[in-house]
Amino acid sequence: MSTRIAVAGASGYAGCEILRILLGHPAYAAGDIEIGSLTAGSSAGTPMAEIAPHLPELADRVIEETTPKVLAGHDVVFLALPHGHSAAIAEALGESVIIIDCGADFRLRDGNAWEKFYGSEHAGSWPYGIPEMPGHREQLAGATRIAVPGCFPTGATLALWPAVQAGLIDPVISIVSVTGVSGGGKKASVGLLGAETMGSLKAYNTAGRHRHTPEIIQNLSEFTSAPLSVSFTPVLAPLPRGILTTATAPLAAGVDAGKVRGVYRAAYANEPFVHLLAEGLQPQTQSVAGSNMCHLQAEVDQAAGRLVVVSAIDNLTKGTAGAAVQCMNLALGLEEQSGLSRAGVAP
Amino acid sequence: MSTRIAVAGASGYAGCEILRILLGHPAYAAGDIEIGSLTAGSSAGTPMAEIAPHLPELADRVIEETTPKVLAGHDVVFLALPHGHSAAIAEALGESVIIIDCGADFRLRDGNAWEKFYGSEHAGSWPYGIPEMPGHREQLAGATRIAVPGCFPTGATLALWPAVQAGLIDPVISIVSVTGVSGGGKKASVGLLGAETMGSLKAYNTAGRHRHTPEIIQNLSEFTSAPLSVSFTPVLAPLPRGILTTATAPLAAGVDAGKVRGVYRAAYANEPFVHLLAEGLQPQTQSVAGSNMCHLQAEVDQAAGRLVVVSAIDNLTKGTAGAAVQCMNLALGLEEQSGLSRAGVAP
Amino acid sequence: MSTRIAVAGASGYAGCEILRILLGHPAYAAGDIEIGSLTAGSSAGTPMAEIAPHLPELADRVIEETTPKVLAGHDVVFLALPHGHSAAIAEALGESVIIIDCGADFRLRDGNAWEKFYGSEHAGSWPYGIPEMPGHREQLAGATRIAVPGCFPTGATLALWPAVQAGLIDPVISIVSVTGVSGGGKKASVGLLGAETMGSLKAYNTAGRHRHTPEIIQNLSEFTSAPLSVSFTPVLAPLPRGILTTATAPLAAGVDAGKVRGVYRAAYANEPFVHLLAEGLQPQTQSVAGSNMCHLQAEVDQAAGRLVVVSAIDNLTKGTAGAAVQCMNLALGLEEQSGLSRAGVAP
Amino acid sequence: MSTRIAVAGASGYAGCEILRILLGHPAYAAGDIEIGSLTAGSSAGTPMAEIAPHLPELADRVIEETTPKVLAGHDVVFLALPHGHSAAIAEALGESVIIIDCGADFRLRDGNAWEKFYGSEHAGSWPYGIPEMPGHREQLAGATRIAVPGCFPTGATLALWPAVQAGLIDPVISIVSVTGVSGGGKKASVGLLGAETMGSLKAYNTAGRHRHTPEIIQNLSEFTSAPLSVSFTPVLAPLPRGILTTATAPLAAGVDAGKVRGVYRAAYANEPFVHLLAEGLQPQTQSVAGSNMCHLQAEVDQAAGRLVVVSAIDNLTKGTAGAAVQCMNLALGLEEQSGLSRAGVAP
Repeated sequence: MSTRIAVAGASGYAGCEILRILLGHPAYAAGDIEIGSLTAGSSAGTPMAEIAPHLPELADRVIEETTPKVLAGHDVVFLALPHGHSAAIAEALGESVIIIDCGADFRLRDGNAWEKFYGSEHAGSWPYGIPEMPGHREQLAGATRIAVPGCFPTGATLALWPAVQAGLIDPVISIVSVTGVSGGGKKASVGLLGAETMGSLKAYNTAGRHRHTPEIIQNLSEFTSAPLSVSFTPVLAPLPRGILTTATAPLAAGVDAGKVRGVYRAAYANEPFVHLLAEGLQPQTQSVAGSNMCHLQAEVDQAAGRLVVVSAIDNLTKGTAGAAVQCMNLALGLEEQSGLSRAGVAP
Repeated sequence: MSTRIAVAGASGYAGCEILRILLGHPAYAAGDIEIGSLTAGSSAGTPMAEIAPHLPELADRVIEETTPKVLAGHDVVFLALPHGHSAAIAEALGESVIIIDCGADFRLRDGNAWEKFYGSEHAGSWPYGIPEMPGHREQLAGATRIAVPGCFPTGATLALWPAVQAGLIDPVISIVSVTGVSGGGKKASVGLLGAETMGSLKAYNTAGRHRHTPEIIQNLSEFTSAPLSVSFTPVLAPLPRGILTTATAPLAAGVDAGKVRGVYRAAYANEPFVHLLAEGLQPQTQSVAGSNMCHLQAEVDQAAGRLVVVSAIDNLTKGTAGAAVQCMNLALGLEEQSGLSRAGVAP
Repeated sequence: MSTRIAVAGASGYAGCEILRILLGHPAYAAGDIEIGSLTAGSSAGTPMAEIAPHLPELADRVIEETTPKVLAGHDVVFLALPHGHSAAIAEALGESVIIIDCGADFRLRDGNAWEKFYGSEHAGSWPYGIPEMPGHREQLAGATRIAVPGCFPTGATLALWPAVQAGLIDPVISIVSVTGVSGGGKKASVGLLGAETMGSLKAYNTAGRHRHTPEIIQNLSEFTSAPLSVSFTPVLAPLPRGILTTATAPLAAGVDAGKVRGVYRAAYANEPFVHLLAEGLQPQTQSVAGSNMCHLQAEVDQAAGRLVVVSAIDNLTKGTAGAAVQCMNLALGLEEQSGLSRAGVAP
Repeated sequence: MSTRIAVAGASGYAGCEILRILLGHPAYAAGDIEIGSLTAGSSAGTPMAEIAPHLPELADRVIEETTPKVLAGHDVVFLALPHGHSAAIAEALGESVIIIDCGADFRLRDGNAWEKFYGSEHAGSWPYGIPEMPGHREQLAGATRIAVPGCFPTGATLALWPAVQAGLIDPVISIVSVTGVSGGGKKASVGLLGAETMGSLKAYNTAGRHRHTPEIIQNLSEFTSAPLSVSFTPVLAPLPRGILTTATAPLAAGVDAGKVRGVYRAAYANEPFVHLLAEGLQPQTQSVAGSNMCHLQAEVDQAAGRLVVVSAIDNLTKGTAGAAVQCMNLALGLEEQSGLSRAGVAP
């Protein structure tokens, strides 16, 4: 009997990217998974032909309303909703359904941090979907509740946890992440118009205001008991997809380039979706577009006494929907890589 | 025993796109096809990690020189070379090897047209790789020599042959095709620099000078004995991939919107890679990015008395490498759709 | 005493572009013109620092509401409003105020065409602001009511009127205009999001539906009594500014390249804002960005028997705001070129 | 008698941008400055119509060869050449000619830093062209030798010197500058092709390798005697023009948001080309495109204990050619702002 999958929030970029990946999943081709209800809020009633013209296989599907009733009867439910909606849906659907939440609701374990950044009551926390973080893959295998990480925390965490864990740095970290515009979502907005974003670069939610800041801190704090400080600045750039993260921090005493490279090589030796580039090469987002990969380079700036790590991901794939399907594979006991491309669509 | 595949011209965009598609081909996953030699000219000796950082699976491969000796011993050889090189290689490799030429050498049947546009001796012609043109799929099945069509002729031909065949138009056709910059190839050039192409639109090879003009005429001439005239203008636009073709021609007497829609619906009813959009929707290149699809809309401009057809393809996929793999599938007797995505990477 | 200028619709792209040009106008530097009220609808009360951060000189100005009362007391009023608002404002302001309307209301002389395309009552017509069309400069000099042309009609008309007037073509014309996204205006919209428009090309308002079609026909009809047919297709491309228009039509008997070039050279010999490129060069929108120029090339496609004309303008400058200031100069009796750049901001 | 100006390197982006600005300079309109020889290396003999189609006023000019003989007889010579050529030209032209060098040759005062980063003999140093740095305007007034700063150092220095001077930070600084592709220059290159750069973000010259690093350190060192460390990472983004710089450093004890704002407000109160944005707004490169402005925001990230400063400039204008003309104005005793726009070409 095939696994029946629903996507709530199927009108947005994350929801559609989940569907794009599922349509290419070998288990879908084999009839082992099945795409069930596609739901949304104000788009309910709209044909997918209008919502997602890039998915002709779903052209005749019609968006339903996001309600527990519509979502019931599925084995896996992806949630790609504005924050604040997941808890009620999860409760209504019950424990046996696998719920994979691309929203923020269950990412933070610290209720104070949640309230400070989201201004609402903390719903709790679920197993956190970066399988490449030591200890997490095990929690995700067979889980029925999974919080998919934010796009910026994914790029930043994969860039930094090996350094924090190995004590390569004094964890006073400065991060600048340049992102494509799909990160802003698919809702009418003047600030995200093509005319406002093409040909322009703009920092936003600066000086610690971005909601992904506490999530980055939470992730890295798993690897040190030392006080950890993160300055995070997101920059909007004129491309549809991709996040390039540059992270720097003071080198710990005695750390040199060889040590850095050794630590990163060991950390990711067996990770199919993290690619440490050869020395002299730098990550570029084009190389990971549409793929579930994170490309990485880690170097020592001797003169400045700093570690410099650069990572590239596709914000919609490894940054959201690809991670969600990777987690689904783990939850269902499928092969973790299944349906997830390691090749980017470049140029 | 697995089918061994070589790619000559693996350092360019077409060659790398063939590799990207092959890496995701089910026959590759199953071990039934195998990626053999990757060759090029001046890039010989360069690791693929530098040439194609988006294909980490091939990172450790090194480009070899394009010679018959290196290419010998493969069952399928893709050629993605500048024109003028295919004939000698084909002869050297012998009749039993399947050769799929992404270059222009064997596309034109008319030696005079070849000489006028390419200024060299005509090499001949091979079965022409648009399976969606009536009669062509049959020629491609089991073929050992295949000429992959040019990117512009693919978009224009799929847009127009049903109208020519059904006599919907007086075939005095005006075509404007707007293309992304990867169509210009991966060679150092001032005119194709990012700074020259971003934020700009430019027509080029205007007034019938583009080499794809005689190929479009050849294709459409298969469907009419009437004299056929084509005005073709390519326009370079600031996006990496995609061709949007607008074709107009005077309507034949008595043709209305219903008739037009009926003809196009019938023409493509069973074609997996051509998607006639619902009325009111228009093709966009984003929807087909990275996919092997052609999206189409055909309409009647009553006031102007013209048929207006718009098609969208990805120049590197359906326009080149996807078509090449589709042809390989036919040549090898695999399922035609195998390894070729119908979903675009959007946004 | 200085000339006092108001801009209604100062929150939109056209309004802001008028302001950008006025701020660089020599008469502004000399104190001979003065920027008065800046008005809008829902943005009333917003500081210009937020609306137009690119105009720091106006940062402390605040948008007022668009009412006749606010606009009264100015010598020149630019209207950059949605259609349907100009007539009432013009009447309220009275005959002595120079009103330059960037909207569509007074462009069409044919009430039936207006009603068919705009679906409302026809307001009438005003002197039409393409000074380069024979006879128009004279009507604009000293005028107190001016209709600024649409952006597409400007590019198409400058490309074609010399050919129509000189009888170079059979006026059965096919036009494809590729445009940057600022043409869609500055209002919240999903379809014009950066993520929807970057990396994509899309035709829209195809098959004669675009409202600029009757305006193009009206303009060209001034130069022939023969029946004239225009097929017009706009295509949206990923750049902020610029329109590249390709127009083709069957050559009249006996017309050759020399004749074509002679006609165009004569037509624009004394026009400061139309630049006929040297043979072999093609217009590109980058070259005219931010300038009031139209770059042109006109060629003969002998094999297809067609004239091919390509024009490039900046849709916001020569296509709207630059034309508006050019008309203001004529209306006020200033030097026509004053404040209008002939140099594009490239790359 | 008018001032005669030559541009050496007129075929590149910096040289053409100087020309674009000069063509709009009031002194040019008044006949007080005159554009003399335009020279280059391999482009000698090429008409400007091909080199710079955006400057129709110079279309009939032809590029001459860059030799002292051709450059002799001018009052002002702008050099926009690869490094290593300026010293010999300057010597040959003699002391009375004003030489404004957009290259790197005379920027660094420390010969060791020069040799480490440029690998050649140090030519010396000239007055350094950031008039907004305390003390520099005075040196530039009437100077006959001027070193125009690098584009990245301009954005970084304007962002940081007030903080360093006022002791707001512990000067252990982390800088990430995202730049448009015109910074890479106008020479044939695979890495800067449109297809490689559109849709992609890439860090380069990471870990202290970029040649602008010692220039940033030199500039900031003028304002502190404390040891100063700079980690600098440039990121290439898909836009033609613009640099967005994010700089962070640990706050000194007792520094709060009010103090920061006060320092920056005071630093730039009288600077026409530096615009400190209102609180809550962030710089964007679109706002400064084609202008000589630097837009700035300076904030306190309380949780991270860091100062965060973001600046936006146009790399070709304030970052190169605009600064060069600003310096020329000072050297010639013209009004400093003359010919330099404060309004950006947005969107």
